[in-house]
Amino acid sequence: MKTPTTAEGRTASDASTGYSNSASADLGAARTVLSLMRSIEDIGRDRARGGYSRPVYGSAELELRSWFLEAAAQRDLDVETDRNGIMWAWWYAPGKQRRDAVVTGSHLDSVPGGGAYDGPLGVASSLAAIDVLRDRGFVPSRPIVVAVFPEEEGSRFGVACLGSRLLTGAISPERALALRDGEGVTFAQALTTQGGRGDRIGADRDMLARIGIFLELHVEQGRGLIDLGAPVGVASSILGHGRWRLSAHGQGNHAGTTLMAGRQDAMVAAARTVVAVREIALEHSGARATVGRLQPIPGGTNVIASRVDFWLDVRHAEDAVTAVIVEKIHAEARRLAAEEGCTMDLVEESVSGTVHFDATLGLELSVATGGSPMLPTGAGHDAGVLASEVPTAMLFVRNPTGISHSPEELCEDDDARLGTVALADALAHHAG
Amino acid sequence: MKTPTTAEGRTASDASTGYSNSASADLGAARTVLSLMRSIEDIGRDRARGGYSRPVYGSAELELRSWFLEAAAQRDLDVETDRNGIMWAWWYAPGKQRRDAVVTGSHLDSVPGGGAYDGPLGVASSLAAIDVLRDRGFVPSRPIVVAVFPEEEGSRFGVACLGSRLLTGAISPERALALRDGEGVTFAQALTTQGGRGDRIGADRDMLARIGIFLELHVEQGRGLIDLGAPVGVASSILGHGRWRLSAHGQGNHAGTTLMAGRQDAMVAAARTVVAVREIALEHSGARATVGRLQPIPGGTNVIASRVDFWLDVRHAEDAVTAVIVEKIHAEARRLAAEEGCTMDLVEESVSGTVHFDATLGLELSVATGGSPMLPTGAGHDAGVLASEVPTAMLFVRNPTGISHSPEELCEDDDARLGTVALADALAHHAG
Repeated sequence: MKTPTTAEGRTASDASTGYSNSASADLGAARTVLSLMRSIEDIGRDRARGGYSRPVYGSAELELRSWFLEAAAQRDLDVETDRNGIMWAWWYAPGKQRRDAVVTGSHLDSVPGGGAYDGPLGVASSLAAIDVLRDRGFVPSRPIVVAVFPEEEGSRFGVACLGSRLLTGAISPERALALRDGEGVTFAQALTTQGGRGDRIGADRDMLARIGIFLELHVEQGRGLIDLGAPVGVASSILGHGRWRLSAHGQGNHAGTTLMAGRQDAMVAAARTVVAVREIALEHSGARATVGRLQPIPGGTNVIASRVDFWLDVRHAEDAVTAVIVEKIHAEARRLAAEEGCTMDLVEESVSGTVHFDATLGLELSVATGGSPMLPTGAGHDAGVLASEVPTAMLFVRNPTGISHSPEELCEDDDARLGTVALADALAHHAG
Repeated sequence: MKTPTTAEGRTASDASTGYSNSASADLGAARTVLSLMRSIEDIGRDRARGGYSRPVYGSAELELRSWFLEAAAQRDLDVETDRNGIMWAWWYAPGKQRRDAVVTGSHLDSVPGGGAYDGPLGVASSLAAIDVLRDRGFVPSRPIVVAVFPEEEGSRFGVACLGSRLLTGAISPERALALRDGEGVTFAQALTTQGGRGDRIGADRDMLARIGIFLELHVEQGRGLIDLGAPVGVASSILGHGRWRLSAHGQGNHAGTTLMAGRQDAMVAAARTVVAVREIALEHSGARATVGRLQPIPGGTNVIASRVDFWLDVRHAEDAVTAVIVEKIHAEARRLAAEEGCTMDLVEESVSGTVHFDATLGLELSVATGGSPMLPTGAGHDAGVLASEVPTAMLFVRNPTGISHSPEELCEDDDARLGTVALADALAHHAG
């Protein structure tokens, strides 16, 4: 068990400022981020897709939650799991109450076939940042908390940041409980299986009131820091984004006996829409529109699809432009479907406006981490949801491939340690 | 238990001719086809897709196999399950050996979300035809056999008519054993679970040598008999058909952080190919080309697909035209993929040339069933595979919706009984 010690060669005044500029003692202490990441590298590997598949409340994510509890216990952190399934590991300020907390952390679930760092790096670096601070002999005057949010990716139940949305009330308990995974299991059922209670989830003002600020560290998911030549950056904003489910309805029939002329093929209607999605996105500078998930029904090789469900992800810095893009896609999808004798529905699953993080906090963080550059991101995060409730900031760590949501996502060991020290600096700055 | 009886009001000479023209006593005895169909109407219902999902060796198909064993036992038929998983229920000719058999039957597996009749109607009407013959007091001079073939649809392991292909040697045991279902389970594993042995499957010349002729009754899967105004028809040919797996390979990445310009989106490459498949098919009169199954990998809403697997079903009366269509599709798919910075593979899964059924047998069957019209079909059947080994014919029963591989597939009760009597007539004609 690791307990606070005073690092050799450091003075008390060094530690109390909270600014370290990556001294070698800090980098040494931050190596635990590497061993923490290594200790989970075999959990939830996806042999078919490559990378990791760790859907919320699946066996891999549950194993990671146990791993977190153990790592928190080894650090004498006191973990509470709230009624929304969020885990909070507290490092008390001596003699202080559990409020005005400096909260950090991230998530442990992944997209199907995702990378090793998206989520877990934020959790591991939070734990390792505590190791760095204790190595410095730092004593917090405000509590430091490591949080783990469930279903950040929305890869199981369709709504991203489900844990933080429940916490803040951005989604109603009724809607959340009715969400279904690909197997037809409801969120209510999954929750019950984990010992949760559907009648207790939802907005938690008491918990929110205990959060002073929230700082999330995350591997970068684009090429921003590569281009800037910086190992660590500070988020300025999160691109507005949303998810919509499109359904093309046609006439299922036999692929051999049905002439081409008489067909109402939902797959053709969906395919033409996928092509249109790309073309419409290209008409709007900075927009991103993606169909990454598509499910033909019934899905047999020798069967004309009667229905195709497919999911649309659209992002743009201006929320009004996002709305225009989705409207254009819906209109074009309906037109294309009609040409195929099909119909087309569109259902909104979640929409988040562009988030501008607290400017003062961001600037402070940039200074506290030795002048880290500020940059926007196109990826959604729990930090984006919490930003509406508490002062929030994010740190990004360079990803040398620029690729994320893929087995090719990467973070160099040195960058992971630099990120951990930067996070420790930021925590010390606010909790010191 | 039902035993042979002499029907009232019928003479021995009536029965021995095998020609009945649907006398009312026959139609009365043929009602067992309706009770047999009703007794399985709750097995394998697919609540999500509608209709039935009865993949081979899944719980529903296994339940149907038990139902068949029971129905055969009730009729004193002697069932043997061969080493390829085909069930054969023998009605011995008194004092005769198990050879020169008049074989009928069909399959019990279904496409995902398929209809109630495709397969089971052929099995139920075969059993009911035996009831009709016994009701007539008919005594076979050659054995009559009801066969049930596994994996006719190929909806689990990808190769249609897998049972009859193994029996005839049209597929090698090695290739069959290595086939995988959507969950990654191999055919070898599924076989072992059912008590089968991988080292014993494959061409079975002894079994084939015991088949004199094969007659399969099947619900029609198009509108041929509707247009002809006939309840029952005789197959003249089966359209040549095949299945190919296409795989678009791109670069998986984050849907939010990846600009549209830098993408290598396998889904867009696949979607453009789906559209091209339809356009190329329309260039060839009588051709059918379908993509009914498509699987993006990893398949997350917020993930650009790194790979998309999709399956192509192509059919044409002239095998050379089928080959040209597939070649055109492959070339166009490669070109479209390259435009998206992707690559495209095509793998042949199965190809069957156009089958022309035994003309003499077909004409005989048409006469034996009171002048049933002859018509071609676009659907593949085990009869098409067996046709290369034994004299083979098919009876079709009218489908008033003209729709198949869909919950809307239908067969009127009166037509089912007429079909059963026609099959009984045909069996009596050959086994009398």
